Amino acid sequence: MGFQERDVISVLQKIFATSDSRLTVGIGDDAAVVSTQSQSIITSDMAVEDVHFKLEWSSPFDIGRKITAANIADILSMGGKCDYLTASVALTGNETLQWIENLARGIKHEADLAGSLIVGGDIARGPKIVISMTAVGSSPTPILRSGAKVGDGLYLSSLTGWSAAGLELLTREVSINSETAEKALSEFSAPSLDYEINFSGATAMADVSDSVLVQAEQIADASGVQINIDQTEISQAAEFAELVQLAEELKVDIFQWILAGGEDHALLATGLNLPGIRIGSVLSGSGISGVDMKKAPVSWSHFNHAKN
Amino acid sequence: MGFQERDVISVLQKIFATSDSRLTVGIGDDAAVVSTQSQSIITSDMAVEDVHFKLEWSSPFDIGRKITAANIADILSMGGKCDYLTASVALTGNETLQWIENLARGIKHEADLAGSLIVGGDIARGPKIVISMTAVGSSPTPILRSGAKVGDGLYLSSLTGWSAAGLELLTREVSINSETAEKALSEFSAPSLDYEINFSGATAMADVSDSVLVQAEQIADASGVQINIDQTEISQAAEFAELVQLAEELKVDIFQWILAGGEDHALLATGLNLPGIRIGSVLSGSGISGVDMKKAPVSWSHFNHAKN
Repeated sequence: MGFQERDVISVLQKIFATSDSRLTVGIGDDAAVVSTQSQSIITSDMAVEDVHFKLEWSSPFDIGRKITAANIADILSMGGKCDYLTASVALTGNETLQWIENLARGIKHEADLAGSLIVGGDIARGPKIVISMTAVGSSPTPILRSGAKVGDGLYLSSLTGWSAAGLELLTREVSINSETAEKALSEFSAPSLDYEINFSGATAMADVSDSVLVQAEQIADASGVQINIDQTEISQAAEFAELVQLAEELKVDIFQWILAGGEDHALLATGLNLPGIRIGSVLSGSGISGVDMKKAPVSWSHFNHAKN
Repeated sequence: MGFQERDVISVLQKIFATSDSRLTVGIGDDAAVVSTQSQSIITSDMAVEDVHFKLEWSSPFDIGRKITAANIADILSMGGKCDYLTASVALTGNETLQWIENLARGIKHEADLAGSLIVGGDIARGPKIVISMTAVGSSPTPILRSGAKVGDGLYLSSLTGWSAAGLELLTREVSINSETAEKALSEFSAPSLDYEINFSGATAMADVSDSVLVQAEQIADASGVQINIDQTEISQAAEFAELVQLAEELKVDIFQWILAGGEDHALLATGLNLPGIRIGSVLSGSGISGVDMKKAPVSWSHFNHAKN
């Protein structure tokens, strides 16, 4: 590559520069010094080239947005605000400085939407691009997966399935010239997180990174309740009509996308009279009920991704 | 591989389990919830297989120790205490569960030495092993690189050069049967950080991950001073006699190892009457003076590693 590591660092320092007063010491010393609350929320997410993203499918800007959104979503799903992010990136050496700059701009773009500062990171050489981020946030009262109560409703911050629909278009190499297909491709490349939704009254919450089914089951297990999913309610969601058209064109069960897809980074919450889309309710018992799909749900196999 | 991702997660959860009261919500929810001070210190470091470590050179336990020490050292070098760590790991699928367990044990071992908790992370699939960690710490008064004052002494927490000596033995495939050679190999695989040294009175501090020369220059630049390195003082250090013997056997300039080597993760500090090894002093002016090596210092080229 026609540039040095210090050129990359200099570009990143410029893009991530901030005069935000929460940051006492920024990028350039051994570590950053930031203001924190008495309780902090910490999470990490890693994305690997050809596993979580493909260079031919996504722009560096969208790749940056997506991994950043994934990290921030884990903080939001705790009822928190994401304050700080670090981004460590392994580069192959085949990238242009422009590509790296656009990756950083994507990270910055998403961080700005959430009011988060990028306060550090690392650069390394590797055989594939690896982006590893850590988010540090705060919440006066963190919302866990274990708080769902019998009688609660089940809500999504926005309709899921768009990312799975985009993946389907890409893997089947189907070209459909419609706004809906465009949206699916765009949501696959970088999901648009709803930073405005007010789920502060939620009793339990999770980020839908694996799938609604997987995350609903985690909430059911952690809370000792049964979660009943109501596909009729889902089909009344505003965006459903749009997505179902695409599903019919591709001859796919739309509920496979909505319930068993993944990487949407919407928020799944239980509670009473929450905003968003109501998709079910919390009953006594255990596990998931009410799901009727044409084939057994498959897990998110193309882009295998598990949190520890 | 003969195990599932959930087996790995289950092993990691067991190894990283803690009942420490600083942790309100541990591994298992979307994010961890921890107690923090009003100011926190954040840093990230990434290590890539065949770039920062080689499987044939280091045990998984030592690989885990080394990357953890690298992260913790960046907190210590701010005059801080490392409270929390996250570890995200890309695995190739060729590892045994035992290998992964030993990697985690190495991470835990080093974290325990520093009184740090592992509170989260991520697992992904990749073509090479990548370990990315983030450390969150605290300090009532962070010590920056910019505080060195004319008249200060320059100190190392322990003699550097051991890691470079170990790398030299490995790359030249020289087999020397001595305690000194053993120590060099061991320090290369996993440097032993001095967690007891009291550098709280330091005016400036940095972690020696790149080399004494690189980091001393950073302190000089940030503080607007000249740093004079005194090779005669260095040669009076207790461990010098031991290391010089190995350097002579290998016909290497020992100061190349000590001053231009890297990956030692010792602390380099300026101040008055500090503990550790005095290796120079702070003068008015700029840059580094007093260095007399047989050849021009080379940067740490084998294991190229730059912080942003």
